[in-house]
Amino acid sequence: MKPMQKGCYAVIFSNQLREQGDAFYTQLSTNLRELAKKQDGYIGLESYRNSDGSGVTISYWKTQEDVLNWKKNSEHLVAQHYGREKAYEHYRVQVCEVLRSYGYDSDF
Amino acid sequence: MKPMQKGCYAVIFSNQLREQGDAFYTQLSTNLRELAKKQDGYIGLESYRNSDGSGVTISYWKTQEDVLNWKKNSEHLVAQHYGREKAYEHYRVQVCEVLRSYGYDSDF
Repeated sequence: MKPMQKGCYAVIFSNQLREQGDAFYTQLSTNLRELAKKQDGYIGLESYRNSDGSGVTISYWKTQEDVLNWKKNSEHLVAQHYGREKAYEHYRVQVCEVLRSYGYDSDF
Repeated sequence: MKPMQKGCYAVIFSNQLREQGDAFYTQLSTNLRELAKKQDGYIGLESYRNSDGSGVTISYWKTQEDVLNWKKNSEHLVAQHYGREKAYEHYRVQVCEVLRSYGYDSDF
């Protein structure tokens, strides 16, 4: 895993799905990922989910403007599907600035 | 999920475990969580893992000094167990400042 560049922005989207293994949601996730990749300022995205349905997606962006565009575009896509309130028991979004980053890779 | 206060710090620790369901690692995770809770400036911690062994732990702290103490203390505890290089195929740490936060809860 390469360290992220200092000064980029991370959007931490923590959530609890209402329903596990929801095929509709799986499709939505795929579509959101594709949408993110196409957007200006996209750096990367990582996604994790526990077996109890709690999970997080962290996306990385070059500027705060990119973050705002991502908010607008992703909310629009979710609304087209069914609305966040129907998919999630609860969620929290945190917009962060990356101050520093370091890592380790066994292949280095 | 309550929104985090603006101006706190998030440490995003993304990693890939070498071995799935490692009992030693499960114990280490529990110990790290206990250690975090006892430390000054601790706000909260969330942890997620995919079935392929990739995962993330995000911890939240009041000040950058708290973040540095957490780095020192957690690395010390991990080293006492076996060293990060033995547990992880790769990992990445990102220290971030939380700029804004919002959320939704079906219980609200």
